[in-house]
Amino acid sequence: MKIKLEIQYDGTHYAGWQRQKNGISIQEKIEEGLQKLFGERVVLHGASRTDSGVHAKLQVAHFRASKILKNIDYALALNTQLPHDIRILSSQEVSEDFHAMRSTKSKIYEYFIYNKPVKSALYYRHSLWVPQKLDVLAMDEASQYLVGVHDFKSFQASNSCFKTTVREIFGIKWKEKEEFLVFSIQGSGFLKYMVRIIVGTLLEVGKGNVTPLEFKEILNSKDRSQAGRTARPQGLFLKEVLY
Amino acid sequence: MKIKLEIQYDGTHYAGWQRQKNGISIQEKIEEGLQKLFGERVVLHGASRTDSGVHAKLQVAHFRASKILKNIDYALALNTQLPHDIRILSSQEVSEDFHAMRSTKSKIYEYFIYNKPVKSALYYRHSLWVPQKLDVLAMDEASQYLVGVHDFKSFQASNSCFKTTVREIFGIKWKEKEEFLVFSIQGSGFLKYMVRIIVGTLLEVGKGNVTPLEFKEILNSKDRSQAGRTARPQGLFLKEVLY
Repeated sequence: MKIKLEIQYDGTHYAGWQRQKNGISIQEKIEEGLQKLFGERVVLHGASRTDSGVHAKLQVAHFRASKILKNIDYALALNTQLPHDIRILSSQEVSEDFHAMRSTKSKIYEYFIYNKPVKSALYYRHSLWVPQKLDVLAMDEASQYLVGVHDFKSFQASNSCFKTTVREIFGIKWKEKEEFLVFSIQGSGFLKYMVRIIVGTLLEVGKGNVTPLEFKEILNSKDRSQAGRTARPQGLFLKEVLY
Repeated sequence: MKIKLEIQYDGTHYAGWQRQKNGISIQEKIEEGLQKLFGERVVLHGASRTDSGVHAKLQVAHFRASKILKNIDYALALNTQLPHDIRILSSQEVSEDFHAMRSTKSKIYEYFIYNKPVKSALYYRHSLWVPQKLDVLAMDEASQYLVGVHDFKSFQASNSCFKTTVREIFGIKWKEKEEFLVFSIQGSGFLKYMVRIIVGTLLEVGKGNVTPLEFKEILNSKDRSQAGRTARPQGLFLKEVLY
């Protein structure tokens, strides 16, 4: 029996989604809860391996259970086992051919920029502070070069090991949401640090250090060293996973 | 010389605005910073005594300095002394007759309600979770009875000691902001716990336990025991102070 979970988390206190030796991961926390529930080791497969410090409004994962727990709402039961910064929003039985990562059609990420003169006392856990004035029109113009099928090697962590660096970006939007400037990107898949390096490079465009055409050249160069800095993880949210 | 400060803070880790023996207050933190700057004890007067756990998007305070520090931006200098959850947004010299609390014309508070079936992993520090379906129209209808000059004794902490419990409410609004239902209230002044008790009572209206007319009767009863529970401080933000 396969179960799909919808999960929300605040990544502040975690070493990212994926289980690892150097810190407590979100996957590990939920797997511990599942183990208590089922009395056996359960492996959780997530749609996205969010980095340390990155948040999820809606992450999706699945697991296979060897037995059926009757009259149990898995979301409710798991939430009693989990810390307050990880919540299971829903659980649902799915067909055997569903795979949280492989069945994904697209994912949407949002990056929150707090663009005010003074750092926020309230939102430092959930945004990147940029005190400089930003040219949002130029950032938008540059970012539209990313839409379509491209080799995104320029925007990948240098220690990365994906087989192919070609991905498709379906759409990019810039929105003002309350006190934030929000960069929203929908794509078929994302390389390691990809959204954060894209945002870091677009901020150079916003500050006037890189023109939109130069940004296009950075994309075409397939050279990580041409791109800007990796923007801090705190501003990044996995917003949705579409199947 | 009198200096006015605009201040933002996350109240999560503080015992409220006002200096006290039972915990670390925001006033104390800023006064410590001022003492380092001026080399003498400086008293800070805030516009609003926000409760423990309550946040401020914009609090106003003033202090009197016995000397002038030349070429010093007080906001910048203070921020280097303060923790990241307290930020001075601006500083400005004001005339001798300005008083952060007494000169106030009105204050605006916002209360954030997260009205979804599952508690939020992301926003528990900044909102009240209400899983039940709420009748927002009924809550809005009830809340409009608060507008005008009234004796708000029903909506005051029982251990309170204000001379008069009459205040004027200038306006009330309900808004949907992203994932939140936001209650916004502007008034001449507020009693201890007033906004939180009002919200707690309006939530009873939203859940269908109290009708809008019964809410009006609770206001008129001048009896704290008729009103609902004090809503948790985490959802409350001091939004603005007007002079």
